[in-house]
Amino acid sequence: MAARDATHDPALRSWFASANEVTTDFPIQNLPIGIFDRPGEAPRGGIAIGEAVLDLRAAKDARLIAGDAAEAAIGPTLNRLMAMGRPASAALRRQVSAMLAAGASAASHAESILVPMDRARMRLPAKVANFSDFMASYDHCARLGVRRDPKNPLPQAFRQLPVAYHSRASSVRVSGEPVARPNGQWQAQDGAMRFGPTEALDYELELAIWIAGENALGTPVPMSRAPDRIFGYGLLNDWSARDVQRWEMPPLGPFLAKSLSTSVSPWIVTAEALAPFEVAAPVQDPPALPYLDSAWNRSNGALAIRMTAAILTPRMRAEGAAPFVLTEAQFARMYWTAAAMVTHHASNGCNLLPGDLLGSGTVSGPEDTARACLAEIGLTGPVTLPTGETRRWLQDGDEIVFRARAEAPGAVPIGFGECRAVIAPAPGWPQE
Amino acid sequence: MAARDATHDPALRSWFASANEVTTDFPIQNLPIGIFDRPGEAPRGGIAIGEAVLDLRAAKDARLIAGDAAEAAIGPTLNRLMAMGRPASAALRRQVSAMLAAGASAASHAESILVPMDRARMRLPAKVANFSDFMASYDHCARLGVRRDPKNPLPQAFRQLPVAYHSRASSVRVSGEPVARPNGQWQAQDGAMRFGPTEALDYELELAIWIAGENALGTPVPMSRAPDRIFGYGLLNDWSARDVQRWEMPPLGPFLAKSLSTSVSPWIVTAEALAPFEVAAPVQDPPALPYLDSAWNRSNGALAIRMTAAILTPRMRAEGAAPFVLTEAQFARMYWTAAAMVTHHASNGCNLLPGDLLGSGTVSGPEDTARACLAEIGLTGPVTLPTGETRRWLQDGDEIVFRARAEAPGAVPIGFGECRAVIAPAPGWPQE
Repeated sequence: MAARDATHDPALRSWFASANEVTTDFPIQNLPIGIFDRPGEAPRGGIAIGEAVLDLRAAKDARLIAGDAAEAAIGPTLNRLMAMGRPASAALRRQVSAMLAAGASAASHAESILVPMDRARMRLPAKVANFSDFMASYDHCARLGVRRDPKNPLPQAFRQLPVAYHSRASSVRVSGEPVARPNGQWQAQDGAMRFGPTEALDYELELAIWIAGENALGTPVPMSRAPDRIFGYGLLNDWSARDVQRWEMPPLGPFLAKSLSTSVSPWIVTAEALAPFEVAAPVQDPPALPYLDSAWNRSNGALAIRMTAAILTPRMRAEGAAPFVLTEAQFARMYWTAAAMVTHHASNGCNLLPGDLLGSGTVSGPEDTARACLAEIGLTGPVTLPTGETRRWLQDGDEIVFRARAEAPGAVPIGFGECRAVIAPAPGWPQE
Repeated sequence: MAARDATHDPALRSWFASANEVTTDFPIQNLPIGIFDRPGEAPRGGIAIGEAVLDLRAAKDARLIAGDAAEAAIGPTLNRLMAMGRPASAALRRQVSAMLAAGASAASHAESILVPMDRARMRLPAKVANFSDFMASYDHCARLGVRRDPKNPLPQAFRQLPVAYHSRASSVRVSGEPVARPNGQWQAQDGAMRFGPTEALDYELELAIWIAGENALGTPVPMSRAPDRIFGYGLLNDWSARDVQRWEMPPLGPFLAKSLSTSVSPWIVTAEALAPFEVAAPVQDPPALPYLDSAWNRSNGALAIRMTAAILTPRMRAEGAAPFVLTEAQFARMYWTAAAMVTHHASNGCNLLPGDLLGSGTVSGPEDTARACLAEIGLTGPVTLPTGETRRWLQDGDEIVFRARAEAPGAVPIGFGECRAVIAPAPGWPQE
């Protein structure tokens, strides 16, 4: 529900040359926001532009940006900016766009306000208040549900509401931090009990949805107001231990299979930046109940974002190979939109807070190439990599790399950067 | 794993007379901690003693208590004290016990440091970092599971691990705050879809387990160290919308059926205070896997706490009736101990934070009188109240009151105070 304005103009160029490269994730039409630091400096807000990070604190100190939103954006997290709601982030976007546009006088400040990306250490963009994870892809559910019940593969409520579970906020980490293989308990095929490092570690390719503003406990958020509660989007890897998950899940859902860690990308592509990529939501059968329906949602509720997951094994790394793409999927195909997720989540009066994180659920599509986790890919056997290695599940040292790009006719494509993490060996069980 | 010391001496008396009444929840052997405020004053730490609240900030200012723990306990939440770990809260307990003991010179400060309970507004004791809810009662699971599968009523992993799900931190509220009946979606018996105020609102009688200290992500907590991660215990009402729950739950577990609100008691009875009430844990069949087992847990892991849930309807209130007891149950019967919950929760490396909240799960026992929610009670039909009213589920205006007392031979009984809340009518759906 973001209006298009001058910041989306495809003809807009920046005085910072690398932002004008056709391959960049971060043209001036994007302006994703995050938190970074450098040695000896406090974490602060930053905006990605080409191959650099705009230091929002430095820009504010140089009076290139001003106002409440600029003040809130200096850090050390984005929670304050998120709390101010969408008008604040939209105002900041307009200021930054004008400042970085070709011809702006700010160009003379480039050295003091632009930090080369390889010098900026990206941090978790917000303190995660609460984390809820959805399951909104028809293809993900249908493929995996067939094993449970071939006649009724979908969860019983799948077509009536966006199914979700509360997940773990404390273990959300930013891209780049290794993920330790978790210990866990499961029952082996022969009925014997096991406790030790998971033997079925998986990724799930998802989008992160970051919440703006706050509704008081007991106050639902109707569909008309849901878009304004979405601050922006990032990449999210919902790491999953499948052996643990199968064993622990009935009837209360996944617990330790998911709380081992969740990786998110450092850059949040704002809802404003994504306005040119809004597309019609998939037609639902049966139609959604009125509380989950709106004309805007049907015409504009989905987002055209192409997402990929790739793997880099230790051997591939040693051979200098590029990451091998395991999944390529389209976010616009999700059965439920982000707005419907927000409205459903708050429909019981649950208070959504600034810095809350929603996972979209695994973004799978109907094609074999759009299976967005190894649990799906492995249904047809282990995947063979260019090195000749095979993978049923992730091995220690493997790295998973997510990328995404919003693409639409007449718009400059914008990217999400990366969400990546290496699998570290399981810790030994502590000796007394 | 708290040692007994002079603070547990059953002969100990206080100079504050109401603490020596045999019926009090708060004798000097208890000393539960919470957060309170008065009009115009900042929230601060308090300790319940008889019919008063010891103002920890005033006691510190009067130099009656000192040190890091006293500093951390002044508020505005208990998270800082929780972060310091069990030795800090034990040290504070010893100071406060000595100060309140008969003969102590602090008696002359009574007027400045003791606030009558009816003048103290109790607050949520800590900012809830994360909230996980367990399902650890055999009888609760067996009774309700029979409807799902008469031959296998227990969750498949029930005897091997304490089953749990991540729940919602943002909607945890302190006793006394009304709970609005939530709107929700469910499928009626005739297959028609419904969205509106839940028609099956229930309570669940649980203990709250508050976490002390912190383990880094990736670092498990073995059974030997689990007791030191438990700051203390309170009462917890896991309000549940059963129609919504049945519909939304498969396969990811309860979501909006639980996040509507969770009520906790303001007083946290510390693990130190409960040392005299440690009893042997129930014998498990099969024995727990080694990572969930310890000699201490078998001999001392359970707690002898008698818990009750009572109802007060508007009509009972108008007639001046006392709350009617619906449930009386014994916490020591839970199949899994709090220590096992902590170790299992962190067994995948999940980081547990100071201020994390664990729900014990519904504390039901084998007796019909020990059915700890209306879902169980209603299996034999609606309950009839002394007014002649009946209840299958909660109605607007009903109030649920939890109480609990730890009791053991040779020990002065200690109580938990109350956890109570009135059901408010559902909010209307917002008009655009």
